[in-house]
Amino acid sequence: MQNVWSLSSLKICSPACDAGASVLKDSFISQVYDRANSLLGQKIRVCGWVDNIRDLGGVRFVLLRDRSGVLQVVIKKGVTPETAIETSKELVKETVACFEGTLVESKSKLKYELQASGIQVLSKPVEPIPLEPATSTEAQLNVRLDYRWLDVRNLKVSAIFQFESWVANKFREFFRQNGFVEVFTPKIVAAGTEGGAEVFPVIYFGREAYLAQSPQFYKQMAVIAGLERVFEVGPVFRAEAHHTVKHLTEFHGLDIEMGFIEGPEDVMNMLESFFRYLAKEAEIDDSIETVRNYFDLALRVPSKVPRITIREAYEVLKERYNHQLPYMEDLDPQAERELGDYALKEYDSDFIFVTEYPWKVRPFYTMRKPQEPEWTLGFDLLFRGLEIATGSQREHRYDQLLANLRDKGLNPERFQFYLNFFKYGAPPHGGAGLGLERIVKQFLNLDNVREARLLPRDPERLTP
Amino acid sequence: MQNVWSLSSLKICSPACDAGASVLKDSFISQVYDRANSLLGQKIRVCGWVDNIRDLGGVRFVLLRDRSGVLQVVIKKGVTPETAIETSKELVKETVACFEGTLVESKSKLKYELQASGIQVLSKPVEPIPLEPATSTEAQLNVRLDYRWLDVRNLKVSAIFQFESWVANKFREFFRQNGFVEVFTPKIVAAGTEGGAEVFPVIYFGREAYLAQSPQFYKQMAVIAGLERVFEVGPVFRAEAHHTVKHLTEFHGLDIEMGFIEGPEDVMNMLESFFRYLAKEAEIDDSIETVRNYFDLALRVPSKVPRITIREAYEVLKERYNHQLPYMEDLDPQAERELGDYALKEYDSDFIFVTEYPWKVRPFYTMRKPQEPEWTLGFDLLFRGLEIATGSQREHRYDQLLANLRDKGLNPERFQFYLNFFKYGAPPHGGAGLGLERIVKQFLNLDNVREARLLPRDPERLTP
Repeated sequence: MQNVWSLSSLKICSPACDAGASVLKDSFISQVYDRANSLLGQKIRVCGWVDNIRDLGGVRFVLLRDRSGVLQVVIKKGVTPETAIETSKELVKETVACFEGTLVESKSKLKYELQASGIQVLSKPVEPIPLEPATSTEAQLNVRLDYRWLDVRNLKVSAIFQFESWVANKFREFFRQNGFVEVFTPKIVAAGTEGGAEVFPVIYFGREAYLAQSPQFYKQMAVIAGLERVFEVGPVFRAEAHHTVKHLTEFHGLDIEMGFIEGPEDVMNMLESFFRYLAKEAEIDDSIETVRNYFDLALRVPSKVPRITIREAYEVLKERYNHQLPYMEDLDPQAERELGDYALKEYDSDFIFVTEYPWKVRPFYTMRKPQEPEWTLGFDLLFRGLEIATGSQREHRYDQLLANLRDKGLNPERFQFYLNFFKYGAPPHGGAGLGLERIVKQFLNLDNVREARLLPRDPERLTP
Repeated sequence: MQNVWSLSSLKICSPACDAGASVLKDSFISQVYDRANSLLGQKIRVCGWVDNIRDLGGVRFVLLRDRSGVLQVVIKKGVTPETAIETSKELVKETVACFEGTLVESKSKLKYELQASGIQVLSKPVEPIPLEPATSTEAQLNVRLDYRWLDVRNLKVSAIFQFESWVANKFREFFRQNGFVEVFTPKIVAAGTEGGAEVFPVIYFGREAYLAQSPQFYKQMAVIAGLERVFEVGPVFRAEAHHTVKHLTEFHGLDIEMGFIEGPEDVMNMLESFFRYLAKEAEIDDSIETVRNYFDLALRVPSKVPRITIREAYEVLKERYNHQLPYMEDLDPQAERELGDYALKEYDSDFIFVTEYPWKVRPFYTMRKPQEPEWTLGFDLLFRGLEIATGSQREHRYDQLLANLRDKGLNPERFQFYLNFFKYGAPPHGGAGLGLERIVKQFLNLDNVREARLLPRDPERLTP
């Protein structure tokens, strides 16, 4: 980790350290290794969780873990004072403790170890642990989620969330650099975005309200309000009773919306540039070194990500995969996987845009294709065969928006509050919504999107 | 603005520009001024909203606005082609349009103007505008909020949201630099944080659930799960029927939680450093130059922000302000303002910490003061006389947590899912929750927290 963590070990150490101890100012274990040369022979202090204990009679080996790695601590007679040896007998797995001692070279594959001269126990388990962090990834996912706070102590699982944090940050960084302003739109709303039934009702001071299915209407409003280019990172809620490895009822949306575009290509160019940026940063950024220990972060983003119309996609699926999709219907999951395969083999790309989706499968606010109104200026972005982004140019003309609503059989009155945004000068605009957990799932090749969500919610799961 | 905005004007310009036009790659109007020297005499193209039109017979002056500023466009016979003069007759306030022309010096206070050679109208109002952006800040707040997408076109209002975006980003930047990992915790939860009734019920597939009042339980879980230091920026929901200038039912929380602390001072030190960082950045960061046109961004953060116990605060209030608060009660709004005054006069500080809050007014998860259990390790941070952060060291000892719940008359069974987090090794930890809108309100000296929220929600307001 690149960050300096100066506070905790310094503070916790001061009353307990030997007078001559070199207080390690940054207490991540990975930094002990990074600085091992200068720390060798020095007294240092490290804190974390006891990952494992091996007791070989006169010598006790403790593996100490924090989010960045593990360090072996050796407790033995002659080196470790009697009182500390006594304390060490209390240690069990997952005890939280700090160890002081001298860093020395070791013949183990960890290369270094700490010869303990002092131990401070901060917190002891009050019950036997139901899930061992070291082997948690072998347990059933449901059990892991029930004991997520033990599961995430597994360093490979921890790496997923450190990576997710990093992806969200890179998203913001990229879009800020491109003139986007972050907005914070309400999650309690009076009407659903798409007009569908798949919203969670909220009781709002005796009135009925809903949880926002997406920031769609409000990010458009922000553009029209003159902020011109906006993004949002926030929760989105879908009351859909799906039971798949890619659906959650609550996930984090990465949303963008940009004004003054000429066409949906401008939005696609922006997304493509973002993933190119992400791929490059994933390769070089030191701050995710820990993640690279567990996952291959190489991404294929060619200089031009392939873009095919859905009509072309129907052809490809039929000819190459013998998969006949009904005309003017959405892609199914198999089709997404096949197009992912096609992108990889034909274009050496982990990504492919599918464009010009049929009007009948797209929401009313999508701009229809001029001259061919049965098709739209809407697109999806597939990442390794999974849809991770949906976008479009939006309809910004008041009269056409009204016509779109009627064409969809929706009652314009219900959407009047939204229609009003378009009455007083609305620039042409477009945008996209991305799913953070899906990006992480695909990037790290995880089996289930739940693995990329700290505390997933689905139709069955509402806890912990 | 520091960012280069290359796409939109380039794209929109290309089919319409004169052959010899210098396409301005970044279309923010403020950049026209920044680069005026090199652009003088050049043909450029700018897009935005028509802020105002003055018609002086043979010459028409259009004030064009985008989020960064305004530019005067001059349309006159002999300079502007007839067709463009015809088009200019369609222009009304809030028309979205692009203008091409030559940048020249001007005697007006804007110093430069564009002599139009072409106009492209992108979107025209379909109705008379109900709220004029140029004077919207003089309207009633309720009207402004009803037409927020017109109100935010006012450049002073726009500046508030550009600033809010910037504050959130600086928050993340600072805490990342200090080893904090961003987490995304669920907003749909099975139980309320504090055990109170002030939660919004959600209907979750036929079951009762709630909107999270704060990420309190889950940010603690993330620390205990080995992420050690975490932060979250996300919506929090409070079903409190307050009608004040500082309460919202939905706002954005900036939450931090850190493991391996020695005491609440470690959390306060961290917060204090953050505000010192924010103050410094507000002074020097070029990206908020536009904001500085409208607001004074100077902040007083002394090298040591004053910290007084609430018992000392009772004394100060009584002696200096003749304001007797009931012992062991919370501060009231007047007391907060008085302590803000005290901090400014005595310490030249916009901030003051009030520490060791009484146990009876703090939630069960707060650590009680050793030896004096009627007091806690909980604190508030006041910013110019308004509470903007609440924090504490948390109780991490399972048995003591159970005792705390009982002492508060809460049923431990209801909190068992939370208690479980503490069973298997929980480091000492603490944290704080800050309100983004309140920080912005106090920083910019706004009258009402609603001004700092794009689309506020309160007991009466659920739209737009």
